[in-house]
Amino acid sequence: MPNYAVGHKTPDSDSICSAIALSYLKTTLGEETVPARLGELSPETLFILDKFGFEQPELKTSFAGEGIYIVDHSDRIQGPDDIDEATILGIIDHHKLGDITTSTPLEIWVRPVGCTNTIIKMMYDFYDVEIPKNIAGAMMCAILSDTVIFKSPTCTTADIKCVEALAEIAGISDAKALGMEMFAVKSAVLGTPIRDLVLRDFKDFNMHGNLVGIGQLEVLDLAIFDDMKLELFADIAKLKAEGNRHTVLLLLTDIMKEGSEMLVISDNADLTEKAYGKTLVDGKVWLDGVLSRKKQVVPPLQDSLA
Amino acid sequence: MPNYAVGHKTPDSDSICSAIALSYLKTTLGEETVPARLGELSPETLFILDKFGFEQPELKTSFAGEGIYIVDHSDRIQGPDDIDEATILGIIDHHKLGDITTSTPLEIWVRPVGCTNTIIKMMYDFYDVEIPKNIAGAMMCAILSDTVIFKSPTCTTADIKCVEALAEIAGISDAKALGMEMFAVKSAVLGTPIRDLVLRDFKDFNMHGNLVGIGQLEVLDLAIFDDMKLELFADIAKLKAEGNRHTVLLLLTDIMKEGSEMLVISDNADLTEKAYGKTLVDGKVWLDGVLSRKKQVVPPLQDSLA
Ligand SMILES: [Mn+2]
Ligand SMILES: [Mn+2]
Repeated sequence: MPNYAVGHKTPDSDSICSAIALSYLKTTLGEETVPARLGELSPETLFILDKFGFEQPELKTSFAGEGIYIVDHSDRIQGPDDIDEATILGIIDHHKLGDITTSTPLEIWVRPVGCTNTIIKMMYDFYDVEIPKNIAGAMMCAILSDTVIFKSPTCTTADIKCVEALAEIAGISDAKALGMEMFAVKSAVLGTPIRDLVLRDFKDFNMHGNLVGIGQLEVLDLAIFDDMKLELFADIAKLKAEGNRHTVLLLLTDIMKEGSEMLVISDNADLTEKAYGKTLVDGKVWLDGVLSRKKQVVPPLQDSLA
Repeated sequence: MPNYAVGHKTPDSDSICSAIALSYLKTTLGEETVPARLGELSPETLFILDKFGFEQPELKTSFAGEGIYIVDHSDRIQGPDDIDEATILGIIDHHKLGDITTSTPLEIWVRPVGCTNTIIKMMYDFYDVEIPKNIAGAMMCAILSDTVIFKSPTCTTADIKCVEALAEIAGISDAKALGMEMFAVKSAVLGTPIRDLVLRDFKDFNMHGNLVGIGQLEVLDLAIFDDMKLELFADIAKLKAEGNRHTVLLLLTDIMKEGSEMLVISDNADLTEKAYGKTLVDGKVWLDGVLSRKKQVVPPLQDSLA
């Protein structure tokens, strides 16, 4: 029976590519491991898989009785629903430490870097396993995605060096150009059902007992959302009610202007004031320089809800 | 303001030596870090510090507002009481993943090996920092202690290879002989107040809402406890009442016979039957082959209390 490597719900490119890269590494080391996904893939991730010749990982949401590696998260709410009935063999992640616990010793690689795949590259180096060309390409794209082509404040020198090394292995001469191509795919939001857009990169957090959902859409130009704002508001309000959430935030991130417009539906009227020192106008606020949910949005919010 | 590296309450040799070794590594990398301890040291640990010329780390139990590296544990109950008011910069550990969480990304090295110092050696290799002779000696002794000179089922090839490498750095020709000398020091329990003995290597666990305290004394020959059993029982009963604990276990481990006598005071009369398939006789049970609290005692107990 193989083990599985699985990222978070509403998988992003990092979750998928790190599951693929870790599975190859563990399998090469003699421990058969299969990548899995907890949900549908985004156009960006499909672009990466297609570009480097990968099938979609198996859609699998139940892991009772199986061995799993958790990648790109460590919060129970973001993982498989029956995580308690699985044996967690390892966690590879670059977020704050969440509330997953285990009853047996395991392998954990967590680093304060921009992308899980940067850590997986360290693992390949540690175990002295060669990275196949196509896996290197997928890992590289995941790092470009998570670091917003090195612009995110979460990006570290380790991420940049890692992209350089992976580009060389994959035989890609201009990594940044491929990154822009990828973000152009990501920016093509027209024609997508509103709910699909809102959930494209959506994460729930348990913040001191309050359920907070935060979605993010990263695009090359925010103007693309001009005619959709009301629909987006209506949908995150629905999402809040459906999930009994305390707050739903939607970050519309302009990767060229390097900032985010935040749409807010919350039980706390002064939420953004307390967390970010900015007053809401018509349920919206522009946060200059804010590109990272993990580093710039979640920590002040979590502290303000303490 | 420096950061701190700190192990668990009732510090053992691994907690102290890994705090010292990690502090040197981080300081060398440009991040001033000071080892600290949460309590008094055991004769074994004092023997190691004396042998390699170290002072006792600073006794420090409050870390509010400071940056800390947590070593050799990841359970809140085992760490500093005000851990929530500290900034956790990293966790280096070889136990099951406990309930510590953070609000910011951090560095975590957890491996299913026999000793935290085996992981710290990996960190030195990763960061390409040379280990000073005396730190190598202390790290080596901690591994010999945690793995019961390689006899514990928690011991891995990585631990054995690590001891070999550290012995060479420290210029020690017979590591096992030094290990036996260390366990002879550890076995000298006569004349020690009973409470000090019980708490010498004592850990509390929160098992599904039940507070369970488990002490362990590893000696070369269990006969040394023959005249102390009644006093030991009386004291763990007191300890149970004082701390409102569900259970207190005391493992008397014979490292030569390779097994443990377990003394039990518990709210569950059939605790050992459910967890270990062994019936208590006069509050005691012999568990053949059981040397490791972490690997052989805690997991079945935690499962049986679920
Ligand atoms: Mn990620
Ligand atoms: Mn230890």
